[in-house]
Parts: sequence; structure tokens; C-alpha cells
Amino acid sequence: MKFTFLPKPKDEPIAALEAEGHQHVALEDNPDMILFGGGPGDFPDQLPDSVKVVQIQYAGVENLQDVFAKHAANGVRFANAGGLYDDTVAESTLALLLAVEHRMKAVDREWNNTQLFKEKQYLFDNKKLAIIGAGGIGKTLIRFLEPFGMEITAVNRSGNPVEGADHTVTLSDDVWDNHDYFVLIAPLTEETRHMVNAETIGKMPDSAVVVNVGRGPLVDTQALTQALADGHLRGAGLDVTEPEPLPADHDLWGLDNCVITPHVANIPRFMERRIGGLAAKNWELFTAGEKMATEVDVDAGY
Amino acid sequence: MKFTFLPKPKDEPIAALEAEGHQHVALEDNPDMILFGGGPGDFPDQLPDSVKVVQIQYAGVENLQDVFAKHAANGVRFANAGGLYDDTVAESTLALLLAVEHRMKAVDREWNNTQLFKEKQYLFDNKKLAIIGAGGIGKTLIRFLEPFGMEITAVNRSGNPVEGADHTVTLSDDVWDNHDYFVLIAPLTEETRHMVNAETIGKMPDSAVVVNVGRGPLVDTQALTQALADGHLRGAGLDVTEPEPLPADHDLWGLDNCVITPHVANIPRFMERRIGGLAAKNWELFTAGEKMATEVDVDAGY
Repeated sequence: MKFTFLPKPKDEPIAALEAEGHQHVALEDNPDMILFGGGPGDFPDQLPDSVKVVQIQYAGVENLQDVFAKHAANGVRFANAGGLYDDTVAESTLALLLAVEHRMKAVDREWNNTQLFKEKQYLFDNKKLAIIGAGGIGKTLIRFLEPFGMEITAVNRSGNPVEGADHTVTLSDDVWDNHDYFVLIAPLTEETRHMVNAETIGKMPDSAVVVNVGRGPLVDTQALTQALADGHLRGAGLDVTEPEPLPADHDLWGLDNCVITPHVANIPRFMERRIGGLAAKNWELFTAGEKMATEVDVDAGY
Repeated sequence: MKFTFLPKPKDEPIAALEAEGHQHVALEDNPDMILFGGGPGDFPDQLPDSVKVVQIQYAGVENLQDVFAKHAANGVRFANAGGLYDDTVAESTLALLLAVEHRMKAVDREWNNTQLFKEKQYLFDNKKLAIIGAGGIGKTLIRFLEPFGMEITAVNRSGNPVEGADHTVTLSDDVWDNHDYFVLIAPLTEETRHMVNAETIGKMPDSAVVVNVGRGPLVDTQALTQALADGHLRGAGLDVTEPEPLPADHDLWGLDNCVITPHVANIPRFMERRIGGLAAKNWELFTAGEKMATEVDVDAGY
């Protein structure tokens, strides 16, 4: 199989694919597959007819809808990197949750331990957590959370049980009412946009913490900022924001109950280490006439 | 049984002991037991002859050696709170480790994700961790670390296997040479003082991270500061420091690879919730003529 890596070739996945007998070529040399790691503006306007599969190196592909529409019409099939970063994102989620509850951002040079004695919370202390958009990352997160003994509710569109969760449900008011922690991992669709807003925050207990490792627009930033400033939420951990990057003068930066990381739940090092193997596997499935392991449903958009 | 709570009575443990039929009295009303939550200066010079047992509400009792010497000579027996805060300290240890490796303190309002892409490390990524002073907290910590799949070495004085550890050894150069993470939970003795110093840091790999949740003087602060500033250590997480409180102008505060919390790994809320139950249990053992569950070996000093 001949493949092209766009927009910027990376050594590690190229070596992994070459080790399996595949050949790295330029776009004009009629590749069978494209590995793609850019944004919509980086995608070629025209693809050679030889291209059968595009392997995207990230999991959230909502920004590629126009690319899908255009090239799927020509029979090109797309795969994302769903599942490839379950462990990186799950560990980062736990790190955010702990940083919020252990009040890492409130630590002061003046040794403010009496303040922290009051404010610090422990994950093991009889907590309930809801994972909104529970798929592969959610399942791995549940494994990371297992030692804390939380009651865990997986929330997804199907309601199909998620391994390790105490309950799996579809989204309803009951979810917002009855949990201490809300972890957002849902894909961004018109249905999920601003799912955390003034109204849903209003249903949450005052002790709630929201962690967003999905997409920034899952949260209405203004409503969240207000609730954190007013104490209607105990805290938030945000790896993604709207807008993103979050402007340096945004109020969220100054709130010590809001721990922010700059979209680093997963990092390129792990993409580079793993995407070659996934591309090879997907190519094998494709040539066997099967559905690829991470094939994008271009109609659903993810 | 009659008990006194010094220096400052707390409602929750008093209620717990009263629920078991015990009676809260003043020191001059001949208590059988004293619950003690202060420092050496708070301990009464003279105890009524009625006092048989002193239940200390914390675990690290190195500052009470003179108190032990004086009153043990009169037959008073002491119990500490060892084991009562295994979960609080273990969770706090994990929070520090994650905050260091996920570079929480290096996050910048300028959205420095390219910096963090390079620097961020994951606990699940093939790491080796040594727990120096592995007892009850260490055992609980191992449980919290289980999902990360680390190779874990328990280090203690006996070399007796610790549940869940891949190896249990006594301290040697091999330990300092061969781990990514060093978690210090040892009690403070003349033997353990400054166990992390310029020499032992010199043996550690440059990628090492030191987490101290034991006692500040386990670490030579100056040597640690130097190594962190020079990049001879990747990071440190400190819940305890020497001196403590760490002065507001200390260099460690300014190092973004050093995450500091102000001695809050365990917090008074959990002491108050749990010490009454432990005191009742220890009293029961004492009256049955047995060794108390957390009896202090006053000669060993802990």
C-alpha cells in the first residue's frame, strides 16, 4: 500500500507503516491511503483517484464535515483515531478532577492551610460521578476511578451499558440533579452544543464540579464563569474551552476554582507513537472488505 | 471510660465516644484516657494518676519524644493515628504526582500548549515508582496506582512484602538508581533525615520526580531546590517542607516543576470524623490486656 502523510509527515508513524511493508509516497504518486493530521484548511481540494481511505490522526472530527461531504461522494472512506487516546485523556481527566478538588490553584505562598482544610475534597469520599458521552474514553476513565469507590453513571445516546459503570442512562434532568462530578467527553454536535448552560447548571448541586475534556462548545463559557464566580458550582476543570485558546484576559483564568489546561489531554507524542499502527490495521480491514475499526459515519459526522 | 480531649475538644469524636457509652470529662475529673491533638507544648506537665492511655490524633509523632519519655515511665501508654488517614494521604499523593507530571503549575495564560506537549508525562506510560517507607499508606497508594500499570517497589526497614508491590526491598543505591518516581512516606528519624540529599539525588535519573508526603526534613530542601532549578530532577511534589511553613519568598515557590501543597495531605475534617472510633477500639484492646491497634513503641519513637 502507498500512503501520503499530510500536511506534515511524521517520522514515527511512517516508520511503523514501512515496517509493515507499506510505502511512503508524495500525494502526486497515487497513494492508496492518506494519513491526515491537519485542520479543514489543510485538506487537499482534489485527491488522486487512487485514494481509497483517509486516516485522521485525531478523534474529534466535527471540523471536517465539509471534507467528508465532498470526498465521501467520490467513494473515499474516512477513519478517525477514536479509542487511540483513551488512556491519555482518561488520565488527564483524573488529573483535572484531583487538581480541582485538592484546590491546587488556591495554594498560596502564605501557607493557607486553614483555608484548604475547609475547602479540600476527596474523590474517595462518597462521591457520584456522571460521564456524559461515555464510550471508550469513559470506559478507561472508569478503570482509573475504580479505587475511589465512586458511584458512576455512564450517559450515552444509546443507553447501552458501559463496562464498569454502576448505571448507564440517556441524558435527563435526573443526571444533572444527582451527581457531584460531571465529566464531558461527548462529541460536538448541534445536540450537545452548550449542554452545560445556565439552566443545566441550575439543576446541579452547589457542590458540583464540571470537567470538560471533550470540546469547548459543550459548555456555555459565560454561564460557567458566572456560576464559578458566584459559588453555584464548586469547581471546573477545563482542557478545552470556547473560545479556544481562551484569551489571556478571560475571567476564568483568575478563578482559583477553575483549573485550566491548554488542550493537552492528549498530546502529539502519543498520536505519533500510535497512529501508524491504527492506519495499518484499518487498511487491513478495508482490504478485507470490512468496516474499519474507527470508520467515520460521514452522515452522523463522527 | 472517662476521657478528656486536649487541647481543644472536638464535637464529632466526643459524640462518637459518647455513643459507645464513654463520658467526656475535664482533666481534673480523673479521665482514663486522653485524646490529644496538639503539639508538645500543649501536653499537660502532670497527668492525673487515672490516665492509662493517650490517643494522639495524628500519625507522625516524632515531636512528642519527650512527652513519651516522661509519661511512659509512669506507665502511661500511647497510641497514634497510624492507618487512619491512609486514604486521604494516598489520594493526595496521587494528586501531587499527577499535578507535577501534567505540568499544572506551568500552565500559562498565553495558552502554551506546544510547551506542554513536550513536557507533559503520563503515569501510565511505563513508569517505575518507589515508595520509601511503605506501610499502610503505601499499601493504599498502591491500590490507587493500580490502573496506571506501574512497576512498584515498596521500600521499608524490614523488607517484608507489601501487598500489591512488585518488589519489596530495603533501601539501597539500586532504589535511587532505578525509579522514575520516589514517594516519601517514611517517619522522621535520625536515620531518615535528609534521605533525599545531593548525593542520593545524584543517583536518580534526570527524569525523576520526588513526592514528599511524609515529613519535611526527609528532604534536604537546598539540594532539592538546586536540582529542580538545574533540571537534574524533572519535578517534585511537596506536601511537607523544611522549613515549614515554607517562607513566601523561598525559591521553590517560583519553580513551575515544584508543586507545593501546605501540609494538607490529610485534613482535620477526617481526623474529627474518625479519631473517636479509633480511640474506642484502642480502649477496648487496652482493657482486654492486648496491644492497642496503633500503639506507639515509645523506644522506637513511632
